[in-house]
Amino acid sequence: MKKKESMGVQQVICMKGGVGEGSYARNSKSQAALLSKSMPLLEQAVLDLCCTTLPESVAIADLGCSSGPNTFFAVSEIMTIIYRRCRQLGRSPPGFWVFLNDLPGNDFNAVFKSLPTFHEKMKEENGQEFGPCHVAAVPGSFYHKLFPSRRLHFVHSSCSLHWLSQVPPELLNKQITNKGKIYLSKTSSPALIDAYASQFQRDFSLFLKLRSEETVPGGRMVLSLMARRTPDPVSDESCLLWDLLAQALQGLVSEGLIAEEKLDSYNAPYYQPYTEDLETGIENDGSFSINGLEIMVLPWDSASGGQNYDRPTTAQKIAKSMKAVQEPMLASHFGAEIMDPLFKRLMEIIAADTREVEHVSVLVSMTRKA
Amino acid sequence: MKKKESMGVQQVICMKGGVGEGSYARNSKSQAALLSKSMPLLEQAVLDLCCTTLPESVAIADLGCSSGPNTFFAVSEIMTIIYRRCRQLGRSPPGFWVFLNDLPGNDFNAVFKSLPTFHEKMKEENGQEFGPCHVAAVPGSFYHKLFPSRRLHFVHSSCSLHWLSQVPPELLNKQITNKGKIYLSKTSSPALIDAYASQFQRDFSLFLKLRSEETVPGGRMVLSLMARRTPDPVSDESCLLWDLLAQALQGLVSEGLIAEEKLDSYNAPYYQPYTEDLETGIENDGSFSINGLEIMVLPWDSASGGQNYDRPTTAQKIAKSMKAVQEPMLASHFGAEIMDPLFKRLMEIIAADTREVEHVSVLVSMTRKA
Repeated sequence: MKKKESMGVQQVICMKGGVGEGSYARNSKSQAALLSKSMPLLEQAVLDLCCTTLPESVAIADLGCSSGPNTFFAVSEIMTIIYRRCRQLGRSPPGFWVFLNDLPGNDFNAVFKSLPTFHEKMKEENGQEFGPCHVAAVPGSFYHKLFPSRRLHFVHSSCSLHWLSQVPPELLNKQITNKGKIYLSKTSSPALIDAYASQFQRDFSLFLKLRSEETVPGGRMVLSLMARRTPDPVSDESCLLWDLLAQALQGLVSEGLIAEEKLDSYNAPYYQPYTEDLETGIENDGSFSINGLEIMVLPWDSASGGQNYDRPTTAQKIAKSMKAVQEPMLASHFGAEIMDPLFKRLMEIIAADTREVEHVSVLVSMTRKA
Repeated sequence: MKKKESMGVQQVICMKGGVGEGSYARNSKSQAALLSKSMPLLEQAVLDLCCTTLPESVAIADLGCSSGPNTFFAVSEIMTIIYRRCRQLGRSPPGFWVFLNDLPGNDFNAVFKSLPTFHEKMKEENGQEFGPCHVAAVPGSFYHKLFPSRRLHFVHSSCSLHWLSQVPPELLNKQITNKGKIYLSKTSSPALIDAYASQFQRDFSLFLKLRSEETVPGGRMVLSLMARRTPDPVSDESCLLWDLLAQALQGLVSEGLIAEEKLDSYNAPYYQPYTEDLETGIENDGSFSINGLEIMVLPWDSASGGQNYDRPTTAQKIAKSMKAVQEPMLASHFGAEIMDPLFKRLMEIIAADTREVEHVSVLVSMTRKA
């Protein structure tokens, strides 16, 4: 049962593929903003790596690469910084072996179609001597081992680790219920809160164990994920949007478009941890030392690319951005046909509400101990 | 010009994706028959590799893996043989790192969807201790470097190397014409024959140079491709089906469905070399020693899976099988709308003809010299 459900989650957590109007590729502005905010710490980690002896070919993994303009962003930056730093130091720059990881349902075909442009851009920006740069795709869950031992020199993951390997088992086996909700909320029982926190703890500790095996001693890892700056797991900051999405689902229940049991049996495989929980997790694992940890805050309207829109326009952009991320997951449970009414309703709910929350992420940079 | 055309070829040489009626996945019986015929020599190469010290993780590349039931066939066999041989010898079996390569237009999404089944099957057949087996996809032309140096222990490629990196340049720049034909034929000029032979020679020698860099000393490579058992480059054995396809295209020209210039400017990026040419190529490269070379012959009706059908049924199967392989290439030049009439006509032409040819392939097994 556990295995089956976990497989299920892995088949449906994927951003909306393609390059159409509703695709993740065209609705990932807040993730792009986050990536760009994370640059200083990422750059420092890469420069630090350049102080060590680099191999002939530096292996870089991006875990949860998705499909769209953000896919190549981090790896491009990482390679460019290494290349330029080596030139600056008068050292001969290494080649690169780039591994793009995401779940098997990710639209890798679209990623591959953009490869020629990616290679051209790297040469245009860095000169014709740049490279060689070999790109491979690694389909699979990062809660499984993805590489043989000690292969990676730099691991990056952005906006992915808040996705759990599965819905907490207590919810799956109905030991705990979460009536009318799909994530933690102000009214969550302590048992529900515990179930989510424990699932995250297990997943994060497994992630660290696997990466510690795959990373060479001295290798770097930079992770960013949605997080909390408060110990309170049910503050608006981490729960508001899930609450509004649950409201939209409740609306469809009252219209008879969704069966009530269908809503009651859906829970998000998601958790927004407190930054201190992450530090504790890394310390408990023991194989990485933390070089830096930063809280990154994006404004409420970050899905609009930081432009100051009015409430209805912002509501539309937020709903679209949530749809691009969550549609495959929700559609597999509730049916594809209710996706449009659901997100239309979500947009109306957000537009009618007056609350605004900031989107909080954490960025942590670490080194694989020798 | 040269670069552009070469890119073009790389974007369109790909088997028909998906799993539909006309897909390569459902019309690749002759390729499957060939794979199964190549097993004894492949097995010997793998057993020989097992006599050497195996690394913790054996890196296996399949170049031109396509998408369908054949994709995992060779790598599954290679891993199974290594695993069982190690158990038999009382040695601890290695893990595996499998690299599936094909052009970026290959339907990798479909390949990734079948990964869970593939992993389950490997464990079912070999036991739960089998693995770990990590799978990565490497999109790109095998006429480019695909891996950093000295990474691969076993390289396999089946039914792919007869595809050239580009149409011979003399045809592209119209120094030579090939009126009404799309490949070599009985009426080909010596200049045309030379142009094709030289393009193959350049491509094959580049392929060997690249693989010799990527393969560890002592690593093995087993290649199969369409070939000739006669020095005559325009015998029916290698030209008949291309001639019949050209006839079908000529038919559409006379019906006004295709412009004559369109047909005259199309030439297949394909060459069926004489087996001795391959040996010479490998000797000239100098980095591999040949362990064995075998000619494999499939009957005329191999697309029907070896069943004895009547001529019309066989004609239908051959036309379907050719369509699954060539449709993306032909459609990009002639337009998707004429594909159905084209292959319908091809089927009629094959059905009305009485000639039969055997399909000849060569299988060559070699070792990367130390």
